[in-house]
Amino acid sequence: MTAATYTGSRNFSLEELPGGAPQPGQVQIAVAFTGLCGTDLHIFHGDMDARVSMPAVIGHEMSGVIAAVGDGVDDWTPGQHVTVMPTVSCGNCPACRRGNSHICHNLNFVGIDSEGSMQSHWNVSADILVALPDGLPLDEAALIEPTAVAVHDVRRASVTATDFVVVIGGGPVGQLIACVAMQQGARVVLVELDAGRRETAKRFGITAINPIETNLVDYVAQETDGAGADVAFEVSGSAAGVGSAVDVLTTRGRLVMVAIHPKPKEIDLHRFFWRELEMFGARLYQRKDFEEAVRLVAEGAVPARGMISRVVSLDEVKEGFLALESGGAMKVLVDCNEVAK
Amino acid sequence: MTAATYTGSRNFSLEELPGGAPQPGQVQIAVAFTGLCGTDLHIFHGDMDARVSMPAVIGHEMSGVIAAVGDGVDDWTPGQHVTVMPTVSCGNCPACRRGNSHICHNLNFVGIDSEGSMQSHWNVSADILVALPDGLPLDEAALIEPTAVAVHDVRRASVTATDFVVVIGGGPVGQLIACVAMQQGARVVLVELDAGRRETAKRFGITAINPIETNLVDYVAQETDGAGADVAFEVSGSAAGVGSAVDVLTTRGRLVMVAIHPKPKEIDLHRFFWRELEMFGARLYQRKDFEEAVRLVAEGAVPARGMISRVVSLDEVKEGFLALESGGAMKVLVDCNEVAK
Ligand SMILES: [Zn+2]
Ligand SMILES: [Zn+2]
Ligand SMILES: [Zn+2]
Ligand SMILES: [Zn+2]
Repeated sequence: MTAATYTGSRNFSLEELPGGAPQPGQVQIAVAFTGLCGTDLHIFHGDMDARVSMPAVIGHEMSGVIAAVGDGVDDWTPGQHVTVMPTVSCGNCPACRRGNSHICHNLNFVGIDSEGSMQSHWNVSADILVALPDGLPLDEAALIEPTAVAVHDVRRASVTATDFVVVIGGGPVGQLIACVAMQQGARVVLVELDAGRRETAKRFGITAINPIETNLVDYVAQETDGAGADVAFEVSGSAAGVGSAVDVLTTRGRLVMVAIHPKPKEIDLHRFFWRELEMFGARLYQRKDFEEAVRLVAEGAVPARGMISRVVSLDEVKEGFLALESGGAMKVLVDCNEVAK
Repeated sequence: MTAATYTGSRNFSLEELPGGAPQPGQVQIAVAFTGLCGTDLHIFHGDMDARVSMPAVIGHEMSGVIAAVGDGVDDWTPGQHVTVMPTVSCGNCPACRRGNSHICHNLNFVGIDSEGSMQSHWNVSADILVALPDGLPLDEAALIEPTAVAVHDVRRASVTATDFVVVIGGGPVGQLIACVAMQQGARVVLVELDAGRRETAKRFGITAINPIETNLVDYVAQETDGAGADVAFEVSGSAAGVGSAVDVLTTRGRLVMVAIHPKPKEIDLHRFFWRELEMFGARLYQRKDFEEAVRLVAEGAVPARGMISRVVSLDEVKEGFLALESGGAMKVLVDCNEVAK
């Protein structure tokens, strides 16, 4: 079998690995597609070299077909279309003990902390398989994982049909959050500096504004009879995004912290007090989010196909990352079928 | 009737005012006691001169006896013991329209935005009266308003009997939050730099630690089997307090922002994301909080009497503020009976 392995310093190389049959409790997946995300891009940049063991097979947004099943696996059969929920929790830490195993303190994030899907054949524990419905194209199915992130984020905010929602940042997760919130019936505006991303949003039916041209607080005030937004998702990772999210909220408005802010940021705590604002950290997803994401992608309720900017082959992974890096691509998929077809 | 009026620049003067009968819809209260709080101290310091109209009769933590009732007031009779919930909302703003009238955008906070209780006889709208139960001493009843703040704060965090709670800051509100959380069955530790305030806490049965001597995060880890605190109340107003509150929380822990932070503060948003922490602003109280506070004070479930450090007369208001300012007093009451008894 063939794998694209991260070998450090912005490089991937194609390797022929021996592979091998699935172990007891595992299945072997013939991987169809693997999506590249911001975390993968961090790995490509070398920012996570301390965490990944090189040469590393990464990749955690995927779809595929079961090729073989190991001993003791009774619920799955070859030929089934599947994806993987790429998190394995410890069961023992304070998060796991209190029902928050999705953010386990000892989480094994498959594709970072252990071998991922950027290979033609992948042996994984049957425990983390998720079945795909009939007729769902496998390229679209690779969007289920980021959609699950968005479903989780929207659930954290308890978005309802009467809410006015602001999404700050129009990358793939921001776009998907906007779509999932709209599915809840909420009115949504996405805030994004990049014209291309605003165009993408419009293609998906999302109202998008440029905060340089349009004063966000004034815009939302006008749309909400002076009240402000019920929910703001901070997906930009910028100090300005945090400030806008706080400023735009109505009394008891909910701010969901989706983006990674490596350094502490200043925040207007007086406004939190004065308006009784609420903030919720949101990370990854729970099983129910993942299942909801399968449903949304399968029903076409999120524009999975529209998100795919480009498909590269296993020997073009570096080119895929360069496309992401340039900002011109929304989602890049790696076609993981054997290169020589 | 006699009033203590704030005349600017750290001064109060005793004035004989004409008084007058209660207007229709009003009652006249013979004020028993008025408590001094941090907001009143801000007024004393001149920090709120733009908001109060001098000479100002301030005071909003009070108890008294109905002396007379105006036309159209049928539910109240002279002789009844009462306190006042000192907030009047507009009914029309976004907060009021959505059920958050307690933090109305146009709130009239009685005792700041309109005449308060630091006078022998006070005419107020019957709408804001709250009846006191038989047998509740009137000095203790002056602690109901700050207790209502604490009840509201604890409600915002949904504190339960299985929670481990950290209260950062041991002023009157911090002490009351600790007591109310303990009433919910929670385990509580209060964090306070001042030895006198830690002594007060111990007198109330509250575990109190000095964060200079005891590492808070380690202490809480030990008490919670490594998990961390379920709830942290930031009542200190300090940057260090905010940092500790974030650091000490367990996965999905709740931070309640009680203190006023006039300037934006740095906060570890990555930890909010990583541990899915939650933050809730909490301000003032709702009617249900106030009624619960009456019950808690009447039942002796909070140490109202123990909170009273000193009682001054209407002509000693300045001395009362100086005692508060020195940090040596927990709660100072003004005895509002006519000075010449
Ligand atoms: Zn991802
Ligand atoms: Zn765990
Ligand atoms: Zn007060
Ligand atoms: Zn209002």
